[in-house]
Amino acid sequence: MAQYFDQFEKIAYEGPESTNPLAFRHYDAKKVIMGKTMEEHLRFGACYWHNFCWDGFDIFGTGTFDRPWQKPGNALEMAKMKADVAFDFFSKVGTPYYSFHDVDVAPAGNSIKEYAENMKVMMDVLAQKQDETGMKLLWGTANAFSNARYMSGAGSNPNPEVFAYAASQIFTAMNATKMLGGENYVLWGGREGYETLLNTDLRQEREQLGRLFQMVVEHKHKIGFTGTILIEPKPAEPTKHQYDYDTATVYGFLKQFGLEDEVKVNIEVNHATLAGHSFHHEIATAISLGLFGSIDANRGDAQLGWDTDQFPNSVEEWTPVMYDILRSGGFKDGGLMFDTKLRRQSIDPADFFHGHIGGMDTCALALEKAASLIESQEISNIVADRYAGWSGDLGKAIMTGDYSLESLATQAIGDNIDPKHVSGRQEELENIVNKHIFSK
Amino acid sequence: MAQYFDQFEKIAYEGPESTNPLAFRHYDAKKVIMGKTMEEHLRFGACYWHNFCWDGFDIFGTGTFDRPWQKPGNALEMAKMKADVAFDFFSKVGTPYYSFHDVDVAPAGNSIKEYAENMKVMMDVLAQKQDETGMKLLWGTANAFSNARYMSGAGSNPNPEVFAYAASQIFTAMNATKMLGGENYVLWGGREGYETLLNTDLRQEREQLGRLFQMVVEHKHKIGFTGTILIEPKPAEPTKHQYDYDTATVYGFLKQFGLEDEVKVNIEVNHATLAGHSFHHEIATAISLGLFGSIDANRGDAQLGWDTDQFPNSVEEWTPVMYDILRSGGFKDGGLMFDTKLRRQSIDPADFFHGHIGGMDTCALALEKAASLIESQEISNIVADRYAGWSGDLGKAIMTGDYSLESLATQAIGDNIDPKHVSGRQEELENIVNKHIFSK
Amino acid sequence: MAQYFDQFEKIAYEGPESTNPLAFRHYDAKKVIMGKTMEEHLRFGACYWHNFCWDGFDIFGTGTFDRPWQKPGNALEMAKMKADVAFDFFSKVGTPYYSFHDVDVAPAGNSIKEYAENMKVMMDVLAQKQDETGMKLLWGTANAFSNARYMSGAGSNPNPEVFAYAASQIFTAMNATKMLGGENYVLWGGREGYETLLNTDLRQEREQLGRLFQMVVEHKHKIGFTGTILIEPKPAEPTKHQYDYDTATVYGFLKQFGLEDEVKVNIEVNHATLAGHSFHHEIATAISLGLFGSIDANRGDAQLGWDTDQFPNSVEEWTPVMYDILRSGGFKDGGLMFDTKLRRQSIDPADFFHGHIGGMDTCALALEKAASLIESQEISNIVADRYAGWSGDLGKAIMTGDYSLESLATQAIGDNIDPKHVSGRQEELENIVNKHIFSK
Amino acid sequence: MAQYFDQFEKIAYEGPESTNPLAFRHYDAKKVIMGKTMEEHLRFGACYWHNFCWDGFDIFGTGTFDRPWQKPGNALEMAKMKADVAFDFFSKVGTPYYSFHDVDVAPAGNSIKEYAENMKVMMDVLAQKQDETGMKLLWGTANAFSNARYMSGAGSNPNPEVFAYAASQIFTAMNATKMLGGENYVLWGGREGYETLLNTDLRQEREQLGRLFQMVVEHKHKIGFTGTILIEPKPAEPTKHQYDYDTATVYGFLKQFGLEDEVKVNIEVNHATLAGHSFHHEIATAISLGLFGSIDANRGDAQLGWDTDQFPNSVEEWTPVMYDILRSGGFKDGGLMFDTKLRRQSIDPADFFHGHIGGMDTCALALEKAASLIESQEISNIVADRYAGWSGDLGKAIMTGDYSLESLATQAIGDNIDPKHVSGRQEELENIVNKHIFSK
Repeated sequence: MAQYFDQFEKIAYEGPESTNPLAFRHYDAKKVIMGKTMEEHLRFGACYWHNFCWDGFDIFGTGTFDRPWQKPGNALEMAKMKADVAFDFFSKVGTPYYSFHDVDVAPAGNSIKEYAENMKVMMDVLAQKQDETGMKLLWGTANAFSNARYMSGAGSNPNPEVFAYAASQIFTAMNATKMLGGENYVLWGGREGYETLLNTDLRQEREQLGRLFQMVVEHKHKIGFTGTILIEPKPAEPTKHQYDYDTATVYGFLKQFGLEDEVKVNIEVNHATLAGHSFHHEIATAISLGLFGSIDANRGDAQLGWDTDQFPNSVEEWTPVMYDILRSGGFKDGGLMFDTKLRRQSIDPADFFHGHIGGMDTCALALEKAASLIESQEISNIVADRYAGWSGDLGKAIMTGDYSLESLATQAIGDNIDPKHVSGRQEELENIVNKHIFSK
Repeated sequence: MAQYFDQFEKIAYEGPESTNPLAFRHYDAKKVIMGKTMEEHLRFGACYWHNFCWDGFDIFGTGTFDRPWQKPGNALEMAKMKADVAFDFFSKVGTPYYSFHDVDVAPAGNSIKEYAENMKVMMDVLAQKQDETGMKLLWGTANAFSNARYMSGAGSNPNPEVFAYAASQIFTAMNATKMLGGENYVLWGGREGYETLLNTDLRQEREQLGRLFQMVVEHKHKIGFTGTILIEPKPAEPTKHQYDYDTATVYGFLKQFGLEDEVKVNIEVNHATLAGHSFHHEIATAISLGLFGSIDANRGDAQLGWDTDQFPNSVEEWTPVMYDILRSGGFKDGGLMFDTKLRRQSIDPADFFHGHIGGMDTCALALEKAASLIESQEISNIVADRYAGWSGDLGKAIMTGDYSLESLATQAIGDNIDPKHVSGRQEELENIVNKHIFSK
Repeated sequence: MAQYFDQFEKIAYEGPESTNPLAFRHYDAKKVIMGKTMEEHLRFGACYWHNFCWDGFDIFGTGTFDRPWQKPGNALEMAKMKADVAFDFFSKVGTPYYSFHDVDVAPAGNSIKEYAENMKVMMDVLAQKQDETGMKLLWGTANAFSNARYMSGAGSNPNPEVFAYAASQIFTAMNATKMLGGENYVLWGGREGYETLLNTDLRQEREQLGRLFQMVVEHKHKIGFTGTILIEPKPAEPTKHQYDYDTATVYGFLKQFGLEDEVKVNIEVNHATLAGHSFHHEIATAISLGLFGSIDANRGDAQLGWDTDQFPNSVEEWTPVMYDILRSGGFKDGGLMFDTKLRRQSIDPADFFHGHIGGMDTCALALEKAASLIESQEISNIVADRYAGWSGDLGKAIMTGDYSLESLATQAIGDNIDPKHVSGRQEELENIVNKHIFSK
Repeated sequence: MAQYFDQFEKIAYEGPESTNPLAFRHYDAKKVIMGKTMEEHLRFGACYWHNFCWDGFDIFGTGTFDRPWQKPGNALEMAKMKADVAFDFFSKVGTPYYSFHDVDVAPAGNSIKEYAENMKVMMDVLAQKQDETGMKLLWGTANAFSNARYMSGAGSNPNPEVFAYAASQIFTAMNATKMLGGENYVLWGGREGYETLLNTDLRQEREQLGRLFQMVVEHKHKIGFTGTILIEPKPAEPTKHQYDYDTATVYGFLKQFGLEDEVKVNIEVNHATLAGHSFHHEIATAISLGLFGSIDANRGDAQLGWDTDQFPNSVEEWTPVMYDILRSGGFKDGGLMFDTKLRRQSIDPADFFHGHIGGMDTCALALEKAASLIESQEISNIVADRYAGWSGDLGKAIMTGDYSLESLATQAIGDNIDPKHVSGRQEELENIVNKHIFSK
């Protein structure tokens, strides 16, 4: 099966002037930026699901891809063939990491027992593949949303037996992730939401989810998994409304269940925009709340109301995001996972490479531009200056609690203060960003 | 000035078959529903700002209303004339409550001192008006967003002097609210957000707001204000992104600053829909988090991306909301404040009445339909049945922490459990709601 | 197979006070409203595709419905079994009409030849079913979007062979529709749009579509099909941008290709809202342009950006729409086709009935309320009064071309005209509508 | 008054490595690209309204700008002072063009007579200013939406006297535009739409607008105005729904009234995105329909539902647009008018320059990148190849009408055709675009 990508070589860096469409023009893995290589900064990952489990179907049409490993056949044999192709691709495209859902890599089987057995078999296959290729696991996760049993939720299901089934998958997938040296474990609540409030007990479902996530954190410590537990916010789709709507919502949830120091967020670009936020907003919010973990690097379509999961291709969108990430210390366990789908019409094997190369070059360029912005200090100086008053006497006294509302008001009225407004300098700041993006 | 509404009588209940456009067909203040009168349930309020301070301007055009009390003149005299007209209207339309921002009722003046003096004068005027008319104050608030000094925020302003100015207004407005017997005090952060992340320190601004709200709560206790402090979520407008985005976001904020037992939310219908939620969602979320306080009763336009603040007119939208409110015990301090604007083309004095009558009849009808739904138990029985498993042995053991992830998974796999999915009955539930709305 | 619905009787009208969930409370087929029966006014149809061809899958999960006629088996035998079940349901739910895509009813086969043969077989089956049950065909259509060959469009495909394939299906489906006495033929361009402008020649694709639609109209006349050809607008999904975006766009297209007197629109509620319009807008626009044909009666979710195809359940939304339809003379060939999907969690056979009963009762109630509005003339009198000036001398002279810009301006400036603005009375009009909806 | 910008010099091109924030880094007016200078290609204009008539107010707050020429005073004197400042700015920022609404430059007065007299005075002032500075008029227009008399529309007003008033302004503004050598005349129907369908006669209002636009075209020919008449589409705001919704809607309107060869569109970026389209879509659609005229160069905010009118700053967004414009022959009468607002917080005189410099550099860069794309032919070759079949025998025969639906279907079925789908190559095309944007 591995011959599927036999016509392709490992993708190499050839520089901005290369005319080879199957080369990196900007991602130079070993290039050092602010003390770390691009590879270390960006921690790219490729995904199993969209690349190797999806056949190109959409809600109005059948598959278009005609992949050999998706033909009928013995489920475990097909899973092994899929692993051959997947690791061949991962190695050639050059992401150091990959990620999977349990049932992406192992057949779900006809029962929870079969599932557990298949997982055991396939984890050995993956371990061997990792050894052979040097690929590392960015994160594992359990798919507790595709099977019909999860139609009304997994952890938030009205039936506790479904909760137990999901718990079994999560248990299995967490153990697998640890065994494979995974650096994070992700919880995406695909069906953890509601279709109609008329049949939903919001408080009950929230309590269930809270308990489930506590069990996950307890299990992490029990098995000595040293990676990060990540929640992936999404506002809707497939459900009408999902409980992990966005980063701010997840923060409240974690606070309620005492998990804010245990769990971080895996922010997907397209989920951010579906929630009515910019991608930058979700990243900046997560950083400001101490929740930033990892990124599902893709993009949506500003005119469409569903998850299009396209490849990142906007250096302009990514540069301020990279700027914030770099300034906050960069990724720790997280990375840039391409949770990306080829367009349904992109049916050629080469399209796999075009998509990932474009995404990797985009992020690499943004990294370079962000580093340039940081080094120039042009923005950070303006921002520091803007808030300077809060380092002064009045500002400090307010924040340390020296004033009550009354004492502050009394003083302000007594002094008849008359603060002047000053320019927010937005256009100038935007020009500075573009100067760094488009200079040289 | 009071002659502005002289041609109108107090609006009376005339029943569903009335053909009088200036009568209630459904709002019968003294009618008893589930043990309380409609008036006690609904706690209607009319607002000062849109009704009496707005002249019909929009971003593309000048005022259309030509109200006598908005002509040039001595500011305090005009404020008193406005109060005459306002209380005349409030009394005639028959909402037991009204609400205001400080500068709706008192001239802002040319300095914080003048402002404080004007407030003193006008509070006496309002107190006297309340005495004369029997009107009560649902809530007061401070407008810390219209003046140019607040262009970059009030509590979240980069300049601590602006924070102090805002604190002075809030202090003054809280005291005024207490003096007038107000039942709630509202915080709406009109400019508490950002225009661009490039010039914004999110963490710093959040800390500032947290401190401000703590000061407000401390002041409430200090002065013995027994009403409720309410935050009004809104996602955007006027700013690009506001910190009190929605109820779930406010919850996380309150938890961070230890205020979740001190502050509740004032949910505006149109703010809910601008945030990408249904109105019902925001109410149900607030109830499930213990944060439900009050409602700004209006409606948006599903096709428009700004706050249209139209009058409520959908019994279908309000019935499930009233159902949830009634089931959670109804309003305590809160009520239904018509934060509503006449259309810019609705320039006649009669239009004031048409708008409010329509809104009051809509909510009254929804109350009746909701009571009918509750009494029938048709929905609550289906929901209780749906979650029955969580009252069983497995469900209880999971929620009380008897299971670890491992013990639950081990048992589930060992038992080879195979839970079946059952219908969510959404269409049937929707038919039940409509049956109650459209029967008889 | 027909035993799937054996436990259900034909749904009967039992009146508003019925507590039977499987009865109509408002749809009384033989009740006369403004001179026609409800059945004649509403011309309800049930669809083949969502009801009988969809298994409950969505983009994140597998089928949930487990319908017997969707099991593996001989394709033609399964198609006949499906027809048994479908007509049993249609008869019991009591819509006088049904509709289908070619491949809903006949297996697509492995070639265009097989397809044509299967269609021949199944048209005889359907003809017999129609005879047995009295069901009539509201419209037929060809599915030229699900098969992978159509991934880049059908009529607008860059490959003329795909155009030819689509033409073959349309030819076959049109002939079948005529043979079965269908009253309309629908063109929905599911893939007639673009994914990216980078690979698209808009002018070329538009010309192709124009030619295709001309061929369809020519064929209609050639075979003597006396029904109406309908285009169904949709803005996006599955493609990023579809050429039949909305009614106004279709109008321009028809004008360009000289088809505006030959083709009308089939307006889907959910497509209207996805296009950023209200349902009412699309209907009113179609009527004002002389393009109103038929309706796909469903509803979307105001918070979701994809086609949810839920059952209609808002009398408030439908009443003004019915008002406009009635005033323009009602349906001619068109009708109310339930292009509706059960929720993926609504897996019970009874849910089929709940969905359709709710939809039919909603439309029936809206019809009654609309008739009441028309008979009262309250709205039409206000509107007539509002535009009365255009029946006056100045208005008539402007519209008949008596004035040039110069002569009109010269006169207006010379007369120093100063027109006064008058109230648009929106709140009052909305109250009038609600009075009719909620009276009695 | 002209001293407002006295501290600023004329902005000069200093090249990409310049660190001067008040210099162009990419807009080099005399640089030749594909045979024309940048200045000739881009035809930049600056606007009168947002720059000099707006004081920074928004719907929630008062003005923030405190511009000297907006103080109280004699209206005509203030208008002249405003002209001094405006032309000083235009000259310094270096756009060769400017644009205005009638009442931006001349006081509206208290009557239509006063208006006409003020216009006469101010046109002489502007003519002299043009002479002195060399500035040219890109387009003029009449503001028939701000005054209260237009609250229910201008041409589409229910009162024909308001139509006449609007006609007087348009007449005056068209004559002024001709007198000043304006190259286009723009019609933007700010209030030509509806607030509620309940009080609206869509067909009547459409007929009124059709007649008005015919009068405009007749007047153009009568006075020998050789510029282009432009309609500016916008979907909503200030009205709920505007008749010139988008380019496709305008096309249908023009076809109905026989104006499609007389009128073109002025596409505003932010109006495109508010209509649910990409900017690129509106441009490509206008070009494909032969309607492309001019551009209001700004940008919206993807998260906000109103017209933010920010300065363009995305080279990535503009490059494919410039590519299409260049390939279609570039601007004729039209140009790039900055219909842009400083942020309300950008209160410094320097901010005027930052905004325009950023916008001009963005468009200039996009022009260079687009030229590079055209010269490489990488995209055009792929597209030509994709549609090659339509130059073959089958394709040509279909388009020339050689086939009926029947003959084509018969041949296709007879040949048992089986067209194969081929990759749409979207990711590869996107990479090609980025290669050109980020090379060198």
